[in-house]
Amino acid sequence: MRIGVVAPGRSVSHEGSLRLAAFMALTWPQVEIVFHPQCYLSEGHFAGPDAARATAFLDYANDPSFDAIWFARGGYGSNRILEAVLPHLGPAANRKTYIGFSDMGFLMGALYARRIGRQLHGAMASSIGMNDKGDSAAWVLGWLMNGDKQGLEPSLLTDKRPAAAFNLAILTTLIGTPYMPDLTDHVLMIEDVGEPLYRIDRMLFQMAHATQLKGIAGIRLGYVTDVQENDPPFNETPEQMIVRWCREMGVPYLGRAEIGHIELNRVVPFGVI
Amino acid sequence: MRIGVVAPGRSVSHEGSLRLAAFMALTWPQVEIVFHPQCYLSEGHFAGPDAARATAFLDYANDPSFDAIWFARGGYGSNRILEAVLPHLGPAANRKTYIGFSDMGFLMGALYARRIGRQLHGAMASSIGMNDKGDSAAWVLGWLMNGDKQGLEPSLLTDKRPAAAFNLAILTTLIGTPYMPDLTDHVLMIEDVGEPLYRIDRMLFQMAHATQLKGIAGIRLGYVTDVQENDPPFNETPEQMIVRWCREMGVPYLGRAEIGHIELNRVVPFGVI
Repeated sequence: MRIGVVAPGRSVSHEGSLRLAAFMALTWPQVEIVFHPQCYLSEGHFAGPDAARATAFLDYANDPSFDAIWFARGGYGSNRILEAVLPHLGPAANRKTYIGFSDMGFLMGALYARRIGRQLHGAMASSIGMNDKGDSAAWVLGWLMNGDKQGLEPSLLTDKRPAAAFNLAILTTLIGTPYMPDLTDHVLMIEDVGEPLYRIDRMLFQMAHATQLKGIAGIRLGYVTDVQENDPPFNETPEQMIVRWCREMGVPYLGRAEIGHIELNRVVPFGVI
Repeated sequence: MRIGVVAPGRSVSHEGSLRLAAFMALTWPQVEIVFHPQCYLSEGHFAGPDAARATAFLDYANDPSFDAIWFARGGYGSNRILEAVLPHLGPAANRKTYIGFSDMGFLMGALYARRIGRQLHGAMASSIGMNDKGDSAAWVLGWLMNGDKQGLEPSLLTDKRPAAAFNLAILTTLIGTPYMPDLTDHVLMIEDVGEPLYRIDRMLFQMAHATQLKGIAGIRLGYVTDVQENDPPFNETPEQMIVRWCREMGVPYLGRAEIGHIELNRVVPFGVI
């Protein structure tokens, strides 16, 4: 197994890649992990210019010697390379698994929309030693290497419907664009980070009224972390909010999901397992 | 002329309504302005519960004795009453002008989508004495009462194409929902407030790739104010960003517009003048 790491959003430090390399050597010595040099580039907000991030992604996605692409980090930016990369993905891209979450939902969603490869919501390659002590990375690798289900979002062990997981801000930014995948009959899991509650409510409104999401099977709420102060107080919890919007949407609220910007971020393979 | 004031978002103070009443008595004594008692309600983030805000709007919109509805204030919340109010608007609602901006774009957009009444992007009823010294309110009233063009967004004096103006966060939240108006052949003016640049870029991505916006005539950029710190620095101005996204959208960038969360917020009648 050979895994390539690219950074369509923000850059990573050499320390970040060394942490992952050390973890891999210790626990998964049979896996070769290769960081694209683009991961360390930095230009303003991003891990290099749009063209460099697009080229790096295409390099590795189209390289048949890689079995998977593990996204390095989120932050913001994978949307900016969609137009440049999607028309140029060849047959090798179709045989890969793409792993990440948060901002990487742009790329993962667009790939899923075109049924290019497999998408795995899970911890990112530079999380280890940061907000991941190794459990989330081990869950990703366990599923990828051995089909080990212990890291899967628990509801997936009993609910056999297709699933997908997104950051709410990324999901709602995909709405109304051709990059939004068809999630008909899917259980949709959402998580969010760093927003005041009125914005979360506003995003849930868009989700609830999105024509493209009319046919989903139900919604699960992941962790909503680092909530910013709402002035005045909003007087509802995220769970109360999602119950209300699911009612307006006419879609069942199915309970919580163990995904998000948290230490123990569970794995959600897109589609049916 | 009789104008009703309701607050589909956040509440206003009695001081705010007294300021407007004093201004009106002095400058427009022939105009009767009536604040709905709902404007002063407060529940959490909002000017009263959703049901109270919806009822107040329907009360005044369906009352044939009012010629216009002047929204009291933005903030957040007019999206939450759309489902409750739209099916219950009668013939009197169709003969009115609706005035506001920012969060009120949800209601104004949904009304414009159904061609219910006329929509006027402009200062709100509680702005006066706050971020409006009276000029913006006078522009709204001058256009409303006398068709006085001196407060119109200057490009409208020469560009005869239909126009519409939105806060970028509100416009992008409408994308993909049935509340989004058909803006084919329109000049779209956008403004924003209180966001870091990476979020503005993310919203512009959604605008640029929104299937519903494919046929617009062009885009004008209003003021982008109270920009929050972007860490790391984003290295682009909002104008550089919109030029780039207009290129990707294949739509002409037409220059600036004098609209936004500013003291001199120009009037933009939706559609053709």
